[in-house]
Amino acid sequence: MKEFFKVTDLEQVLAYASDFPRVGTEEILLEKAAGRVLAENIVSNVDLPDFVRATMDGYAVKASSTFGSTEGNPGYLSIKGAVEMGESPLFSIAPGEAANIATGGMLPHGADSVVMIEHTEAIDDATIEVYKSVAPGQNVLEKGEDVRQGETILACGRKLRSQETGLLAALGKEAISVYRRPVIAVISTGDEIVPVNEIPGPGQIRDINTYTLANLVRAAGGVPLPLGIVRDNFNDLLETCTKALAQSDMMLISGGSSVGTRDFTIEVLAALPDAGILVHGISISPGKPTILARSRNQALWGLPGHVVSAMVVFEIVVRPFIEHIAGLSAQHKKVVKPSAMLSRNLSSAQGRIDYVRVRLVEKEGVLWAEPILGKSGLIRTMVQADGLIEININSEGLDKGTEVEVLLL
Amino acid sequence: MKEFFKVTDLEQVLAYASDFPRVGTEEILLEKAAGRVLAENIVSNVDLPDFVRATMDGYAVKASSTFGSTEGNPGYLSIKGAVEMGESPLFSIAPGEAANIATGGMLPHGADSVVMIEHTEAIDDATIEVYKSVAPGQNVLEKGEDVRQGETILACGRKLRSQETGLLAALGKEAISVYRRPVIAVISTGDEIVPVNEIPGPGQIRDINTYTLANLVRAAGGVPLPLGIVRDNFNDLLETCTKALAQSDMMLISGGSSVGTRDFTIEVLAALPDAGILVHGISISPGKPTILARSRNQALWGLPGHVVSAMVVFEIVVRPFIEHIAGLSAQHKKVVKPSAMLSRNLSSAQGRIDYVRVRLVEKEGVLWAEPILGKSGLIRTMVQADGLIEININSEGLDKGTEVEVLLL
Repeated sequence: MKEFFKVTDLEQVLAYASDFPRVGTEEILLEKAAGRVLAENIVSNVDLPDFVRATMDGYAVKASSTFGSTEGNPGYLSIKGAVEMGESPLFSIAPGEAANIATGGMLPHGADSVVMIEHTEAIDDATIEVYKSVAPGQNVLEKGEDVRQGETILACGRKLRSQETGLLAALGKEAISVYRRPVIAVISTGDEIVPVNEIPGPGQIRDINTYTLANLVRAAGGVPLPLGIVRDNFNDLLETCTKALAQSDMMLISGGSSVGTRDFTIEVLAALPDAGILVHGISISPGKPTILARSRNQALWGLPGHVVSAMVVFEIVVRPFIEHIAGLSAQHKKVVKPSAMLSRNLSSAQGRIDYVRVRLVEKEGVLWAEPILGKSGLIRTMVQADGLIEININSEGLDKGTEVEVLLL
Repeated sequence: MKEFFKVTDLEQVLAYASDFPRVGTEEILLEKAAGRVLAENIVSNVDLPDFVRATMDGYAVKASSTFGSTEGNPGYLSIKGAVEMGESPLFSIAPGEAANIATGGMLPHGADSVVMIEHTEAIDDATIEVYKSVAPGQNVLEKGEDVRQGETILACGRKLRSQETGLLAALGKEAISVYRRPVIAVISTGDEIVPVNEIPGPGQIRDINTYTLANLVRAAGGVPLPLGIVRDNFNDLLETCTKALAQSDMMLISGGSSVGTRDFTIEVLAALPDAGILVHGISISPGKPTILARSRNQALWGLPGHVVSAMVVFEIVVRPFIEHIAGLSAQHKKVVKPSAMLSRNLSSAQGRIDYVRVRLVEKEGVLWAEPILGKSGLIRTMVQADGLIEININSEGLDKGTEVEVLLL
């Protein structure tokens, strides 16, 4: 039997990611910040809140004025005034005094807590009964309780979710520095591939990988640059790759990396400026015939043509490279994988990591992972799948009922 | 103690969602389809693949010609020709014959399987040795094996991921019918709120909720329509709400739903055309003082002003309404929640569902959910949180070590 690939372990392939530089940065408006990766440390130049705020509707008081108050033995406080929202109260609170205040209002000088309106009763315009005591600091946010001035509150390399945009708004950051979204060229190769708007002739099929890969690039935080279908022709592919190099930060070529055409794709990749082939073959299945090359600062991928293989390689191998050049820091790459029970026995060859498509089904409160077996050319199996499970490189398989972690697709 | 809210159970609130109509549909190009919700059933008008395809590089053969072949006792086949990619072979394969074929190539008439190139050796230009037998159908995709002509392969109401766009490409669907993205008006209220580009005066804070809610709307598949900050003034709010009704499919008003201002927000909502207040108060914490109203076909929400409460109510209550009007069908709303071990005891009041912010930390292979306690006015707690856990309405709390499901944020 011939040995075509000298395969590289997955871990070793992933270790190459850090050799590639991160993309540049840009200044964007906060409105556009969600999903982007921060390229600066955010240091607060204010205390949040900047004043003592009520967190309940009620009365601002000195807590000591309420000590001992109960429903049976209420305390009596005289109303000093009412706090206007968004304004600094012009009066202060002495022992035995209270000021009407709404949630978010600024506590008057002298007050240190808020009695909830539910725990009071107005006797007349000037006096309230208090049925419950409060402790100092109760029902208020202290100055700086949320964020302290001078504190580094968000670190460079963090992906911004909704709540982070809210925090940036609170700090008055109208514009922030983020990493550019990396531009990822997507090329399909093969004489049998026709565009989606053509009717395939005998022996032809429509281009699937441009769509799946472009959308995976988007989901990974990149901007896909689809460059269409290239015939199995050295000069055509070299020309397209040269164009891709100039316009993108990384390149994905699908098809052309299996035995039949590999020399050809390899030759083109090797002909690019300062090119080197880093990996030819990875010890994973599907996805073994994957090529990783480098030209100057760019990673160039030869992905398998089979749609399932190309998607699996993207999720397992390519995505970490995109996230790295996109500036995402290691501690913010937290991927939480739900656990499920494997619904049947699975066998596996040792010496490679197997990725098995699974459907998640809940039965009587238990989440089951049902393997979807099928050839890696069948797009349908990915449409049916909710995720992937991994069978370890040293494992001969997994038994039914094993708890597995599911990488959601 | 006064009772301000007659609270509604969460389940009952969520049941109102189905009373609201779905948004209209639109035709879009496949390039733009990822993340959208399908508004038609997709029926395949072709077999996929449309011909028998090789899934390996090697030789197309009649399987019976290889029976009994081993490394010790190879079979000999004569080479009939080579299959050109993307073309229909002009020859057929008889017993004892083979044709060179690459992955994706069309099998010649008479061939029913492919011997992998690794299991062959070319003796000369006309003959190969075969070291391993193949079964009929091995290393090929049969016609229609992926998708059969006439089959409904994607159902209306399904959200399209990368793989679904790939399937649509394979079927030649250049354009598809999807639900419009619902437009969700976002309004912040409060005299103390200033825009992000202003320096807050004494007693003022910057608008956070417009950012958090707009980005949550986007994540839920909607298009946010931020209408800015409205003062606590009946006419101003009525004017903005009237404008919002005309331009959106749903409305979120944050602030103004707690005791202090609730009559005022309620009055405005009640003054809108054909308006009715459906819910005032939900038995969840945080988020109890939430209002759900209806004007004609639109859901109008009065959300709490506290940033954490507004976000929790959005994720738990508002998001299902948005997904419903966005056309997402119930069976495609699968949310998979990872499990974790609770890191400490948590107490809870009966009679309401508590949502607790948690940070996920992996220690020695175990995923722990560490509660982040803190007032619901603190945006920092959401920035620290990876998700929410739920404490049941009838529970007095959860013990350390309990397995909890985490709704990721």
